[in-house]
Amino acid sequence: MSTHSTNKTTISLADLAERFGMTLHGDPSVQIEGVATLAAAGPAELGFITNSKYLAQLATTRAGVVILREHDLATCPTAALVAADPYLAYAKVAALFEQAAMPPPGIHPTAVIANGAHVAVGASIGPYCVIESGAVIEDGAVLGPHCIVGPGCVVGAQSRLVARVTLVLRVVLGRRVLIHPGAVLGADGFGLAFDGNQWVKLPQLGGVRVGDDSEIGANTTIDRGALEDTVLEEDVRLDNQIQIGHNVKIGAHTAMAGCSAVAGSAKIGRYCMIGAAAGVLGHLEIADRVTVLAWSLVSSSVTEAGEYSSSMPLMESHKWRRNAVRFKHLDEYVRRLTALEKNGEDS
Amino acid sequence: MSTHSTNKTTISLADLAERFGMTLHGDPSVQIEGVATLAAAGPAELGFITNSKYLAQLATTRAGVVILREHDLATCPTAALVAADPYLAYAKVAALFEQAAMPPPGIHPTAVIANGAHVAVGASIGPYCVIESGAVIEDGAVLGPHCIVGPGCVVGAQSRLVARVTLVLRVVLGRRVLIHPGAVLGADGFGLAFDGNQWVKLPQLGGVRVGDDSEIGANTTIDRGALEDTVLEEDVRLDNQIQIGHNVKIGAHTAMAGCSAVAGSAKIGRYCMIGAAAGVLGHLEIADRVTVLAWSLVSSSVTEAGEYSSSMPLMESHKWRRNAVRFKHLDEYVRRLTALEKNGEDS
Amino acid sequence: MSTHSTNKTTISLADLAERFGMTLHGDPSVQIEGVATLAAAGPAELGFITNSKYLAQLATTRAGVVILREHDLATCPTAALVAADPYLAYAKVAALFEQAAMPPPGIHPTAVIANGAHVAVGASIGPYCVIESGAVIEDGAVLGPHCIVGPGCVVGAQSRLVARVTLVLRVVLGRRVLIHPGAVLGADGFGLAFDGNQWVKLPQLGGVRVGDDSEIGANTTIDRGALEDTVLEEDVRLDNQIQIGHNVKIGAHTAMAGCSAVAGSAKIGRYCMIGAAAGVLGHLEIADRVTVLAWSLVSSSVTEAGEYSSSMPLMESHKWRRNAVRFKHLDEYVRRLTALEKNGEDS
Repeated sequence: MSTHSTNKTTISLADLAERFGMTLHGDPSVQIEGVATLAAAGPAELGFITNSKYLAQLATTRAGVVILREHDLATCPTAALVAADPYLAYAKVAALFEQAAMPPPGIHPTAVIANGAHVAVGASIGPYCVIESGAVIEDGAVLGPHCIVGPGCVVGAQSRLVARVTLVLRVVLGRRVLIHPGAVLGADGFGLAFDGNQWVKLPQLGGVRVGDDSEIGANTTIDRGALEDTVLEEDVRLDNQIQIGHNVKIGAHTAMAGCSAVAGSAKIGRYCMIGAAAGVLGHLEIADRVTVLAWSLVSSSVTEAGEYSSSMPLMESHKWRRNAVRFKHLDEYVRRLTALEKNGEDS
Repeated sequence: MSTHSTNKTTISLADLAERFGMTLHGDPSVQIEGVATLAAAGPAELGFITNSKYLAQLATTRAGVVILREHDLATCPTAALVAADPYLAYAKVAALFEQAAMPPPGIHPTAVIANGAHVAVGASIGPYCVIESGAVIEDGAVLGPHCIVGPGCVVGAQSRLVARVTLVLRVVLGRRVLIHPGAVLGADGFGLAFDGNQWVKLPQLGGVRVGDDSEIGANTTIDRGALEDTVLEEDVRLDNQIQIGHNVKIGAHTAMAGCSAVAGSAKIGRYCMIGAAAGVLGHLEIADRVTVLAWSLVSSSVTEAGEYSSSMPLMESHKWRRNAVRFKHLDEYVRRLTALEKNGEDS
Repeated sequence: MSTHSTNKTTISLADLAERFGMTLHGDPSVQIEGVATLAAAGPAELGFITNSKYLAQLATTRAGVVILREHDLATCPTAALVAADPYLAYAKVAALFEQAAMPPPGIHPTAVIANGAHVAVGASIGPYCVIESGAVIEDGAVLGPHCIVGPGCVVGAQSRLVARVTLVLRVVLGRRVLIHPGAVLGADGFGLAFDGNQWVKLPQLGGVRVGDDSEIGANTTIDRGALEDTVLEEDVRLDNQIQIGHNVKIGAHTAMAGCSAVAGSAKIGRYCMIGAAAGVLGHLEIADRVTVLAWSLVSSSVTEAGEYSSSMPLMESHKWRRNAVRFKHLDEYVRRLTALEKNGEDS
């Protein structure tokens, strides 16, 4: 089904306009019961348009109302709610229709709670959770099935571990943190010293701190620190399968897309956007408001806000092969170019 | 042990030839009890050769029979089964000897099945599985230990979740789908809007649909859609640690190797091959029968079938450094080249 | 807290010097109770310095003692322990202060142990573990909560599966192997043959062998072999989210940083260092003592020890775009350069 509605929530266009600060063009009494794509929406659903490539779908939509920019109003065949940022407005409206029911407070009988663990009365602990001695679960926290919370870990108020989340050791989550299945926080940082014959492991004696309102994606891993903590400030948003090495620090409101990775002791500023599968080497610093495009590598500090990339363009493989072979001798070609220029000057 | 045999399965060369459409050269009564590499095989084992670099091992093999191309028959010291595609023939033969015993139907006493869940009588539910209200497990489905099946999820007939698979919300698996441990399907797509100060999360109201006979590797993640579903057609094969963003569509018979990643709303055609750690950016379309080589990035739509790459060649690091430094000024060098050519024309 | 101490361990500077082969400069009777960073350490804590960029922090440290090189002794305001390799010495000293308490031998009442499984009396099995028939857990092994050990798997003496580790089938761990949460060993290798219409799966009949003292990071996946085993020799160190394909062989003392990946049948030598997110294609061989820098791709065999790279430099995106566009025609530019040189010679 591509329409999403619930018996529970119905709201009029008038109320939508007022509540979310939009300007209504249309019948204020029309009732909206859900959200949908422009193509699939019916008269009781709301759609939105933020990208001009969907204008064709706007022209034929049967939606009850569409959130859009002033610029697109003239071409809208339905009622409209004008917003400066339709995508943001849609995000807020759609939240009304989300059906996610939170489980009631209480501890499932199969949860194993150690004697030294503290679980607030208002927390919800799902089936097969294991909470170890010294762990603290605060009020309103929700742990889905199969979560593991190790010693010295704190799950802050209203935080939610969807299912199968592992907090290994000394992981402190702030309030309203959301963590998706398979994530592992607080595993050993990768600290090794070679003694000439074999590796010697450095104990990882720090922890992990995650700020309020942060979100950690499925199967993402965040290692605990060697001495100090690995730190995410507030409202940090990590997608799936991200790797955060020990003692990394990530500034508030930074978002990282799937499969990106940050090596140990790197420091990322605030309001940064790190693209999918991008990489950040260790022991460097990225300033605030830096955007790193997908599949790019940050190998030294970035001191200026702006947009950066290092990914290479795709080509048919026979053509790519010829160019790749040439790349191996690029320095030589430049020297030959310089020599030619010199000869040109001399003659 | 590098030979694999079981007391259960024995088959004659005559039967192998007939059953799998191969031409026998050798004693039809010889019994085969297992498969092995050419180097390790004994007289009751079957080997195969598909790559000429193994001809030395063919010459000295003690295998009871070898599957090979007509081209290699003359050099084979053992009985032979000639096939046009020895690798494919081997795949079918080896399946006879796999010992994987499926558990009997029934629900392990430790499984937690919500009242609103439906589990077919012929399904098998392993220890510590959690099946939530509104989930459906169809006949012949097998869930190994520690699986979690969330609301609105369907596990189609004969599908198998090996162990520790998480289906979060609105994940619908077709028939005979195979999912390996640690995979997470149906977690929230990475939808965020920035309101000037902080991130606002877009509810992800869609689901995931996986077609018949598809296979999903260990620790692979497939997010559910924002409105429409994220869709894998039939016989899609995903290796380990792959990330599939929300609203991606993957065409039938496409295979993706480990660590590849597809960003939201990308559409991949049928019969595509996506190499290890390759990437596909969002909101683009890849035609049918496109091969993307390992470690390459698709950053715009690919409209023609064929093979594509963008990976860079490895070099000793001092040489690489010189070439990488030159790359940063490539545009300037080309302009200097053009200027030289012009000067050449003018003089 | 950035200092780490325990009531249990106190050691004098004299004992530290003697036990770890360092030369003491200072009062031998001073007691050390923990380790800390130079910035945070107090008079009963030990710090270390190995990187000259921290000299400022050495000058102002309040640590009871600092491990350092002879070269830095003069600038040290505290007692000092001189070592040739301060990082290695610190690793050994810090291990004294690690508080990780191992659970006592015994099987948690919630563990599901199949009849055909063998668990040594001295092993420790945590809550919700599932040990299947034919699995063997040796003496002193420790399985944290939620581990799954499948048929034919062996957990060697003193090995530790921290929590939520999956050993699928025929995984044999040596002694003192350490595996972090979410790791999956022994899942199916990615073996597929195409029959013209659809994929046919090759049964993966091999296993995984992991040598003594190896370490496997969180959410790392190691597939079992098609016929022979996938093999890690002793003291192999894998970080998080690494993917090891079927029939890979990794030599002793090789370390791989997070998110790296090795395709099937590749062979990596001993004492190699594979950087973060580096890749190794299949069916090739890397010699001993090869270092592959982060985000680089090994696409053909490497026969000489040394350091190799293929990653590209980061640039502001408008500059990057110009250079990337030029790269697509690099072969043509080189031909034009060569033509110019020829013209120069001719004239």
